[in-house]
Amino acid sequence: MANTRRDFLTKVGLAGGYGATFTAMQTLGLLPSVGSAASVVDLPVTAGKGVKIVILGGGIAGLVSAYELGKAGFHCTVLEARERPGGRNWTVRNGTTVEFVDGTKQTAQYISSDSYFNAGPARIPSIHKTMLGYCRELDVALEVFVNTNRSTLMVSDKAFGGKPVEQRQVINDTRGHVAELLAKCVNQGALDQELNKDDRERLLVLLRSFGDLRPGFDYPGSERAGVARLPGAGEVTETPRPCLDLHSLLDANLWIDTTHEETLDMQATMFQPVGGLDHIPYAFAKKLGKVMQYQSVVKEIRKSDNGVKVVYTHHGAEKSIVADYCICALPVNMLKSIANDFSPQVKQAIADTHYNDSYKIAWESKRFWETEYNIYGGISWLQGGPINMVWYPSGKMHSDMGVVLSGYGLQSLPAFNQLPNMEARFAASRAAVETLHPGHGKDLNSPMFVVWEKIPYNQGAWISSFGDYYGGPYRTFLEPDERVYFAGDHCSHVVAWQEGAALSAHRTVRMIGERVRSVKT
Amino acid sequence: MANTRRDFLTKVGLAGGYGATFTAMQTLGLLPSVGSAASVVDLPVTAGKGVKIVILGGGIAGLVSAYELGKAGFHCTVLEARERPGGRNWTVRNGTTVEFVDGTKQTAQYISSDSYFNAGPARIPSIHKTMLGYCRELDVALEVFVNTNRSTLMVSDKAFGGKPVEQRQVINDTRGHVAELLAKCVNQGALDQELNKDDRERLLVLLRSFGDLRPGFDYPGSERAGVARLPGAGEVTETPRPCLDLHSLLDANLWIDTTHEETLDMQATMFQPVGGLDHIPYAFAKKLGKVMQYQSVVKEIRKSDNGVKVVYTHHGAEKSIVADYCICALPVNMLKSIANDFSPQVKQAIADTHYNDSYKIAWESKRFWETEYNIYGGISWLQGGPINMVWYPSGKMHSDMGVVLSGYGLQSLPAFNQLPNMEARFAASRAAVETLHPGHGKDLNSPMFVVWEKIPYNQGAWISSFGDYYGGPYRTFLEPDERVYFAGDHCSHVVAWQEGAALSAHRTVRMIGERVRSVKT
Repeated sequence: MANTRRDFLTKVGLAGGYGATFTAMQTLGLLPSVGSAASVVDLPVTAGKGVKIVILGGGIAGLVSAYELGKAGFHCTVLEARERPGGRNWTVRNGTTVEFVDGTKQTAQYISSDSYFNAGPARIPSIHKTMLGYCRELDVALEVFVNTNRSTLMVSDKAFGGKPVEQRQVINDTRGHVAELLAKCVNQGALDQELNKDDRERLLVLLRSFGDLRPGFDYPGSERAGVARLPGAGEVTETPRPCLDLHSLLDANLWIDTTHEETLDMQATMFQPVGGLDHIPYAFAKKLGKVMQYQSVVKEIRKSDNGVKVVYTHHGAEKSIVADYCICALPVNMLKSIANDFSPQVKQAIADTHYNDSYKIAWESKRFWETEYNIYGGISWLQGGPINMVWYPSGKMHSDMGVVLSGYGLQSLPAFNQLPNMEARFAASRAAVETLHPGHGKDLNSPMFVVWEKIPYNQGAWISSFGDYYGGPYRTFLEPDERVYFAGDHCSHVVAWQEGAALSAHRTVRMIGERVRSVKT
Repeated sequence: MANTRRDFLTKVGLAGGYGATFTAMQTLGLLPSVGSAASVVDLPVTAGKGVKIVILGGGIAGLVSAYELGKAGFHCTVLEARERPGGRNWTVRNGTTVEFVDGTKQTAQYISSDSYFNAGPARIPSIHKTMLGYCRELDVALEVFVNTNRSTLMVSDKAFGGKPVEQRQVINDTRGHVAELLAKCVNQGALDQELNKDDRERLLVLLRSFGDLRPGFDYPGSERAGVARLPGAGEVTETPRPCLDLHSLLDANLWIDTTHEETLDMQATMFQPVGGLDHIPYAFAKKLGKVMQYQSVVKEIRKSDNGVKVVYTHHGAEKSIVADYCICALPVNMLKSIANDFSPQVKQAIADTHYNDSYKIAWESKRFWETEYNIYGGISWLQGGPINMVWYPSGKMHSDMGVVLSGYGLQSLPAFNQLPNMEARFAASRAAVETLHPGHGKDLNSPMFVVWEKIPYNQGAWISSFGDYYGGPYRTFLEPDERVYFAGDHCSHVVAWQEGAALSAHRTVRMIGERVRSVKT
């Protein structure tokens, strides 16, 4: 199966954009797709004078909407149920409490004040110009996020005696075998009908470089796949190690995970804010000041001819707010339990929208992966068990402690879902680390399990069943229901990424700006 | 031609380790080559009591030698010709003067105090545990160095109308074509003798993932190679772009440069010290204090039965120092003009040792590559002209100004070497940027040309002609000439890397420690 972004999102529950069916190829120039900078919402600074907007939800879509509308003179209020901004953009640090809807509570008890993990989004690809533009505009310090790391490990229960191998081995030995086999076919004349003599000869040259083949086009192994002993001083020469054989590589079926780094929105260079992804929403919130109203839980959304009334509770007390327009930037899942007088079409779209779920299990640990394995960031992959990956921190490298994820994916995957309770999940998570790094399972402390299905005010990670969704409810959310507009990554083709939320907010702000202008003129 | 590290070093003059001939495969375990931490020079703290060592040269080998010998109680003096430590580890900042042996002077005039470039080594791979260990021990702040970046560009004068394409296109479209061709061969029975039915079927599954093939095993293009329009909000769906055809890819011959990132010591994760690589030698020098004697130019090295006498000039005045042992950590090139009474064998080894040359051309510029191309670090590659690469800074991303290299390689390559003067070289360098980034050649300011052949106290970059060298002079430098020991990357199999210099220093320190102990007991 090809590892497109959509496959990936569906299969292992990683964030990824909308993979358009790759059908009719359009004739386009070969120039690089040089992008524009962060989209500018082109409204005059007085566009919103005297216009009140109530924004439901202080996630990225709500924050960006309020920020851009504020620039254009609109009077905004953001109702946010939690005590913090950001929604799924949430950084867990020492003392953070994770409370599930069923009342289960966990509190992170970390030794180091630098320890953290991002429970929701955790990386920003360089193609996400809007979010990078906001980081620049709001002075959010960034550092490189390591998504590609040849020193990370891969393990399959079906090959190599269940022992881990380095990702550089799987990648480069597979390349070597593929190049060797194709060179053999070329040399045996199997492609004489396909390619002219000149191209065949040049293809052989390419394959030698591609696979690091010997002059005879055989592949006995390559330095690229790592060595048994690194070169040193004096008599210490490099000692090669044998390549992984093709049959075992096929048994192991590890290849699918090596393409993760080649999916478009997972390609280097990637970024993370220094110290936690929530520096982004906090930077927005700082700019917004009193526009943000925390601990404000939306209970009713009511339309009227010339406005919107939203009923909410604040510290338990019922309150209401009336505005000219509303931007509903809540997860669709949450709308299912909020009283409203939406149109039948919108009610149906809400009912028809379903969310995937995603979990992360995180541990604080001394950084044995750096000191003993030379692993600095990146992801090790496991096949055959309930835990699919071990993800190492990209920040504060060379410090004593760090937070490592062991398990990030869809909770609904059977191997994981059949684990009876949190204790069993932590045990499986620890066991995955032990498999990759024998002797180090015991170094893991302070486990935290975040599953978005159980997190209040989300109760889901991101849209599921893309085909049904984009063919159905999606279009409904693109248009306002009278004076209520919708925004969020679910109103974009970049689901599960902050970029989609921000672009959706821009679109909504532009629509409101246009409407206000037409009313005024 | 396969792109081994040695090929690479020879071909484009990049730093790289010693590529041992990949011959007899030894039977070794498949476990990852988990390395030890920074090598410890295991000497008691009183080992060197009363023993004087003179160390010639304050590059990495000299600094590491003095630092480790100091820990063991030796009384060291480092004679360094320059006013700074580090040797080839040299960071050029605003105000730095580059003076050639012929008297030519350039002074960097940068607008930003953050602007810099590393004239010598610039990156540390995570497999270089010794140097990373010192960064940790000496508290040198590191950040990720971006060597792998799918957004960088490639251009060949032989294809695509001489227009640049993205590296993600070259890499992923080539993979697609290779996978498609091999799948075709498998499906046509060309590998029926090679692989059993089960493996053939599994290979087809692998190839679909490897090349992002369609279900029919054809390759019309892939999202991995980039898109014409990124997905957005509302109706903005992703727009595909056509793949680069195989024939043109073969014309372009760009593949060789895409394997740069897969050579073992160029693989992610890589590092750089924050703010300049010279933070490493300065951290050593700070620890060494008065052990460092700058502006001390070695003139004579004389052996005696129970010691070594070194004559040097300090601010023009002739001085001398007598010590029990000497570590000569100067470039072999420099020894050719220093009076000495080395053995005939050492004199011959010095005469037989030759250096490659390497240059860098650097410009200060606004960061158009980030704002307009989403290029954050990494290298763009050019074929067909005198300039081989454009290398973007990995530090201070999102700031206004940065230093970009346009041209890094062997000065002796004909296309570059035939440029008549510095002006012509700067013009070619600017033209390379203009080719990749039309309209931006004019943004480049304050050019600096560093070529190690012309830098006093080096007059060369690193050992050339590895085969001759390791078969000849190398072994001579591994043994002391009476009480004079040699150290440097040229005494290691990791030439042109700081790691080789440090490992060589460790080896020399251990040898001296052993000798002193045997003398004392």
